[in-house]
This record gives sequence, structure tokens and C-alpha cells, in this order.
Amino acid sequence: MAELQGFLFPRSATGSSSLLPQPPWHYSGTMLTLEYRTDPAAVAELLPTPLEPADDDPGAVAVIWADWQSCSDSFDELLDPVRSQYLEVFVVARCKYRGEHFSRCLYIWVDRDYAMVRGHHQGYPKKLGSIHLTRPVTVGKAGPRVGPGARFGATLAAYDRRLIEATFTMTEPSEHAGFVNALPMIHNRWMPAIESDGSDSLDELVTMRGFDAEVGRTYTGDFEITLFDSPVEG
Amino acid sequence: MAELQGFLFPRSATGSSSLLPQPPWHYSGTMLTLEYRTDPAAVAELLPTPLEPADDDPGAVAVIWADWQSCSDSFDELLDPVRSQYLEVFVVARCKYRGEHFSRCLYIWVDRDYAMVRGHHQGYPKKLGSIHLTRPVTVGKAGPRVGPGARFGATLAAYDRRLIEATFTMTEPSEHAGFVNALPMIHNRWMPAIESDGSDSLDELVTMRGFDAEVGRTYTGDFEITLFDSPVEG
Amino acid sequence: MAELQGFLFPRSATGSSSLLPQPPWHYSGTMLTLEYRTDPAAVAELLPTPLEPADDDPGAVAVIWADWQSCSDSFDELLDPVRSQYLEVFVVARCKYRGEHFSRCLYIWVDRDYAMVRGHHQGYPKKLGSIHLTRPVTVGKAGPRVGPGARFGATLAAYDRRLIEATFTMTEPSEHAGFVNALPMIHNRWMPAIESDGSDSLDELVTMRGFDAEVGRTYTGDFEITLFDSPVEG
Amino acid sequence: MAELQGFLFPRSATGSSSLLPQPPWHYSGTMLTLEYRTDPAAVAELLPTPLEPADDDPGAVAVIWADWQSCSDSFDELLDPVRSQYLEVFVVARCKYRGEHFSRCLYIWVDRDYAMVRGHHQGYPKKLGSIHLTRPVTVGKAGPRVGPGARFGATLAAYDRRLIEATFTMTEPSEHAGFVNALPMIHNRWMPAIESDGSDSLDELVTMRGFDAEVGRTYTGDFEITLFDSPVEG
Repeated sequence: MAELQGFLFPRSATGSSSLLPQPPWHYSGTMLTLEYRTDPAAVAELLPTPLEPADDDPGAVAVIWADWQSCSDSFDELLDPVRSQYLEVFVVARCKYRGEHFSRCLYIWVDRDYAMVRGHHQGYPKKLGSIHLTRPVTVGKAGPRVGPGARFGATLAAYDRRLIEATFTMTEPSEHAGFVNALPMIHNRWMPAIESDGSDSLDELVTMRGFDAEVGRTYTGDFEITLFDSPVEG
Repeated sequence: MAELQGFLFPRSATGSSSLLPQPPWHYSGTMLTLEYRTDPAAVAELLPTPLEPADDDPGAVAVIWADWQSCSDSFDELLDPVRSQYLEVFVVARCKYRGEHFSRCLYIWVDRDYAMVRGHHQGYPKKLGSIHLTRPVTVGKAGPRVGPGARFGATLAAYDRRLIEATFTMTEPSEHAGFVNALPMIHNRWMPAIESDGSDSLDELVTMRGFDAEVGRTYTGDFEITLFDSPVEG
Repeated sequence: MAELQGFLFPRSATGSSSLLPQPPWHYSGTMLTLEYRTDPAAVAELLPTPLEPADDDPGAVAVIWADWQSCSDSFDELLDPVRSQYLEVFVVARCKYRGEHFSRCLYIWVDRDYAMVRGHHQGYPKKLGSIHLTRPVTVGKAGPRVGPGARFGATLAAYDRRLIEATFTMTEPSEHAGFVNALPMIHNRWMPAIESDGSDSLDELVTMRGFDAEVGRTYTGDFEITLFDSPVEG
Repeated sequence: MAELQGFLFPRSATGSSSLLPQPPWHYSGTMLTLEYRTDPAAVAELLPTPLEPADDDPGAVAVIWADWQSCSDSFDELLDPVRSQYLEVFVVARCKYRGEHFSRCLYIWVDRDYAMVRGHHQGYPKKLGSIHLTRPVTVGKAGPRVGPGARFGATLAAYDRRLIEATFTMTEPSEHAGFVNALPMIHNRWMPAIESDGSDSLDELVTMRGFDAEVGRTYTGDFEITLFDSPVEG
């Protein structure tokens, strides 16, 4: 009879097979945040009781692409980059809980199993997707230089269907990275009962805030975004 | 404030974005089961308290490849096969709990997000992998005919490393599909606390048995299997 | 100075790195052939001089899904199935050349590099795609049994866009596997000049017929097919 | 009877389905070049007649990872980045032809079909692979800052086997990007005869040099590299 090790399953005598290494986890990346206003009712219908719509601008949403490297405190993953690089797309809105305002992730896709399950641990409703985001360049013609006029494309697909595509044109430096995703997050951690009787064995409302964050250059700009239908979304 | 629908996240007003459809789920597939004896201590160190080694043949393990189609009770997934086909490799041992014997999945890999998270719901410690299994054929030369002498290959890779490879040669029909994976399953459902303080918010020992199972033709045979090292396994 | 070995590049002293093994190649698989009539002008505009439209039924086309295993005469690939299994979708029409009728592949996608380049060798204009086809089953509920009423789904995507999707319902056994893809093939082998001056360094019209073919059970039925737009098709 | 358009197959009335857009093609990217000396005989046996070993340092080879964006003169691909981003690993040696020295690509892998076939057009013996390269970062802890002490990992896998892995540590700025890949390239364009009789229908020795190249910051450093066996390499 063993004391198993490992932050997450599969747990073993050494812990080395855990799908997630022990926290803390470090992240460095590039983000494209597209903020717009949709029908506040479309946001409200995605906020489970007891969450309420935000007081101001309750239809504001952000669609965010992120091109990440992440690693554990061992930093080993950085030398085996298949284990540290992933892309992410997520949709965020704001909401109110007990009088305070929070950001909340409504939908999210990543392209690696560890990133997906790390999200589940944090209450992010992650699925797998195929995600692409134009990178700025510093040499050659095959990419935009960071600065006014730079144009970027961003796409998401899942199950062989394109779900979102967008283009973004930088206009000028910005003092901030958007307001929709700027609050502490509030998420639900749900795991349905093994009996599949409609109840949840895990049903927690959790709040999170990042720490030790460092923000690089930020630009504002114009964008177009298209959302496509899918039988397994919505 | 909304009543969200959906068996699993992301939950929404319609429930259609849930990563898992509502149970029941149906499965049809082909399995290759390779059973052998390893050091009983290597099995015992993977059994968390209060599970105990099996009384008889405590070092018996099975490595199983499965080539699945699965679907919900709507059967819609069968007409969009990217949503119904997946491959799976898993390692099973037997154990004892409160005097009864069970099978337990020690390691498991699949190649689709819904199959991975369905496993998490059931206590399977699923990761993503790249999985291949020779298929028998009924025409042409590019595959074995089911029957004595038929040879099959089976492989597993994850994070760009090959983890397992095996070959199997059928010798004769069999009355059964192996004894290691033949018992009810006993699994742990674990979700670490959001505080990452070493405790688990979800920590359930669950048992399961399949039902309504139909077994087709079964063959026995000889095999070779090779397990490779990886920094993220073991 | 070396005599390099290998059917295709990269050639080496041993030949073992060749992207294609030495012919002959063997194939076993399952095919779904959907035949319909489109505007004959849409076929004619894809037939390069000196090919001409077929005399009879010049707008007939077939869209074909194939789920393959293939191997060389060593049969080694069958025991490492990641090197022998691939899926294929192709679009075929008939045409006339010097008074004889041929089938011709207009578009084709596969999901493995060796299958793609083997096609280029044979004059097939292959691209990579993500391809899925429902499999018939003999146990369980998660798939159709071969026979009247069995329903299948078939899809193609490339570059994160779904390009084709279809459903097929078997009605009754058939004596043949369709007429559009039943003739010898006529293809062009093209490789543009290294100078990219609009000329081709390789420009051959080649004909092929399979040999040693074995056909299993064949069924006819009804289908629906949808073709989607893409900026990189058409 | 039609005049088909398109730089490469599949050719059509519009040319838009061509696997490659019309040249010129533009490239921007990041490269990691690892140069070392191997047995000169191991290089010589990969040089087909009439190529000869380089006069000086005939065992020098470079293994190069490149993280690319590329596009056509329309620049459309940059706004749909799934069509413009790819990774590449290649092995280069030097050789002599008619008294002049050239660089020659011995092995090369990419992860997109258009990049693979563009290579075939240019005489590169490209296969598909899974390729990863650590990216430098400017914020956060999950990646190296460009400069002395920065560490990078680089890997290649194909057919579910890891083929190469390396780590690199920057020591100081460099005046150049290496000497092995610094010469004009000399490649063979080969396409075996359709009859598979051992002859080639296309057999050209082609030379190329890049033009309009812009080089950014360059660093030298120390590295370790491991090459793994595979049944389909060597």
C-alpha cells in the first residue's frame, strides 16, 4: 500500500508521470485581445446563479488569442519545447458576485493536454482546438513589424471546423491591455457525479488573480472578427 | 441569472457546448490485450491506500490497445466521425479492496479531448497520445486476415517520444478476452485543491462495471512488447 | 563519390531514408464512392489540353473516401501501423484522350507524407487533409452494421476549414463499385522549372491501371454531400 | 479543352487550388544552427556523383532549426497564419562541384504540405516531422532572454519517434551565422520514372542562392546534440 506522489493523475511512487507538474507554473507569451459589445442577454445567459451581469457595460466581451511558453519551477520544460509551448483562445466577460466585479472565462480552447487539464483545475472550461496567430517579425517581409499599420490574423478551429477568425491592425501604443479581462477571475469547478444523475461531485466557485505579472509593449488598433456555427458549440 | 445546461463544461443555455454529451455513451471497437507478469512490487507501488495487491498473481498486468467508435444516445456523432472515432492504450492491473478483487487502470492515453475528459469523469488518469494498431483486412495484401498466423503491430507515443511498441501473432481462437481487465474497475477521482496546498478537492474511490456488453470473435496468441523511457512517465 | 540508393529522396548509401520504399506497393482498404452529375462545363475546365470531355455523361463525377493500409513488399510497415495507415479523399471525372476513355483525379487529399508523395509520383495532385469516415461495426451500438439501412458519415478538412461533408445510407448489395472511377487513370506529372518561368521541367501525361485487385462486398445507397468554399480551393 | 492555371498541381481554371502560390515567396524567421565535425566518410557517402567532398573540413555539418513565417507576393497568407507558419529542421554539409564549393541539404523535415512540396520543387528532400524550438521571451520567466546564458531546446520527431534533440546556450554575439550553410546550395531534383524501372524522369542538378536577405542579431554558443536511430532514416 503506497503513498502516491504527483500533483495530478496518474499518480505514482515518483510523481513523475503526473499530467501536471507541481505549481508554481510560469508563463510568458504574446496576447491579442479583441473587445466588443454584444447583446447583454447573451452574456447573462452564460452566468450561472449566483453570478449577475456587470453593472456597467454588461455586454462587453473579449476574445483573446495567446501564444504561450509555460513551465514549472524546474524550468525543465523550456529545454523540451514540445512540453512548454501552446496556443490558447478564450472568450471573457465580466460579472458581479456578492457586490464585487470579476472577469469570467465563458469558452476556451488550447492545443496541449497539460494546458487543458491545468485549466480544468482552475475552473476554465477548456477544450482542444487548432489555434493560429500571426507573429510580428524583425527581419524580412513575411510578417508585420510591431507598430502602427501592423496587421495580424488569428484563427480557431475544432473538430475540423473553423470557429473564429479575425484580423487586427495596430494603430498606436496603448496604456493598458483591455478592461474585460482585467479583473480577478471567477470560475466554476465542476465534475459530474459518477452516477451521472444530474448532480456534481465537485461544484466550487473559485476566484483567482495572477501575480508577479510583467507586461511588455501594448498596442491598440482596429479589428474584424467572424464567429462560425458548429453543432458542438453555443 | 441562469440555469446552465450541459453534462460538463462549458455549460450554456442550451447545453450544446458541453465537452461531453449526456450519458449513456455507446462504444464499439476492436481490442488488443497483451497480458504478462511483472514484478509484483512494481504494481503494488501504484496502488494507493487502501487498495491492496491481488491475492493471486499480483504482478499480472495487461497492456490494451482499443480502436473505438463511441457516441451518445442521439447517435449524431456517428455521422460526423471526427467526433466519434478515437484510439486508446491503457495499462491495467488487479487489486483488492475490502476483500473484493477489482481491475484498476494505472496509465492510459487517448487521442481526443472528449475521450480524455470522459475518462477523467470516470477516474481514468488519461493523457493524450498518438496511438496506432494494425487492422485486419478482408481483401488485398496490406494487412492480416483474422486467424492463426495473423500479425499485428501496436504503438504508443506522447510528446514526440515512442513509449510502447508491440507485435502480436494470433495462434488460435480463445474463449475469453483475458483475466486482468475482466473484473469491475476501481478508480480514484482526484482534483487538487485550487490552493495547490497538497490536498484534493475531489478525492473519491469509484467502482464501475460495463453493462450491455457484446463480445465478438476472440483470439489468443504470442507477443513481444517494449516499453521506452520518458522524462514524463514512470 | 557515391552511388546513392533509394527509390525517392533523401537518397543515401543504404536507401533506408527514402520517403518511399521500392515498389511494388500493396493496398487494402474500404471505400465510399459518391457519384453524381455536375455541370459538364465544370468538369471540362479542369481537363488540360489534349484531354477532352467524355462522350457520354461528361458531367459525371465521383467523390471517394478511402481508409487504407498500404505497405511495401517487405510488409514491415504493417507491424508499425503509423507507417501503413492513411485516409484519402479524391474527386474523379472521366475524359477522353486519343479516342479512348479514362478516369482522371481532379483533386485529392491524404493524411501522410509518404502517401502524398507517392501520389505525386503517379500524377495525383495530392495535398494534406484531415479525413474521417464512419466504420461499420460487428458488435455494440456505436456504428452501423453493413447492410440495408446502415448510415455513414464522411468528412474532409484542410487548413482548419471543413471542405466536404457527406452522409450515405446503404440500400442494397451492388454488382459494381461505380462507373466514374472504373477506367484506367490518366494523369499529368508536373514539376515547374527551377527558374519559375512558367515552364515545367517535368510534364508527362501518364496512364495507369491497378492490377491484382480483389473486391469485397459492395453496396449501393443514397447520399447527401455538401462542398464548402475555401480561399485555397477551386 | 482548357488552359489550366496554377504554379503547381492541382491546376484549375483559376489557379487558386495550386498547392503553391506563384513565386516570389517571402520568408521571415528565427534559426538555430548547430555546427560540428563528423566522419568525412559519412558526408562523402551522401554526395551523389559528380559531387565531391569539400576541400577543407569535409566532415563539417550543420543541423539547423528554423521557425518560419512565409507568404506569397499577395501577403494574404499572413492574415491566415495556419497557411504561413511552419517549422523546419535540416542537415547541411558542404561539397565541391566543378571546382566550386556549395552547401547541400542532406536531410530535411517540415510540418506543412506546401512547405514540403516547395522544397521538392527546389531539390530539398523534405519529409514531414514534428519540430519544436524554444522561443526567447521579453517578459516573464517562461523562456530565455536573448543574451549570454540564454538556453534553448530543439527537437525533431517523425512517425512517432524522436530523431534529434539538442540544447544550446548562448555565450556572446557573433559576426556571422555559421560557415556550413553559407554557400550557394546545390541540390538534385529527382522524380522516379512512372514505370519504376530504376530510372528517373526528372534528374536535375540545380543551384540556388537566396537574395534580398536581411540578417538580424546573431549569437554564438555551446550545444549538445543527440541523434536517435529510426528504421526509416539513415
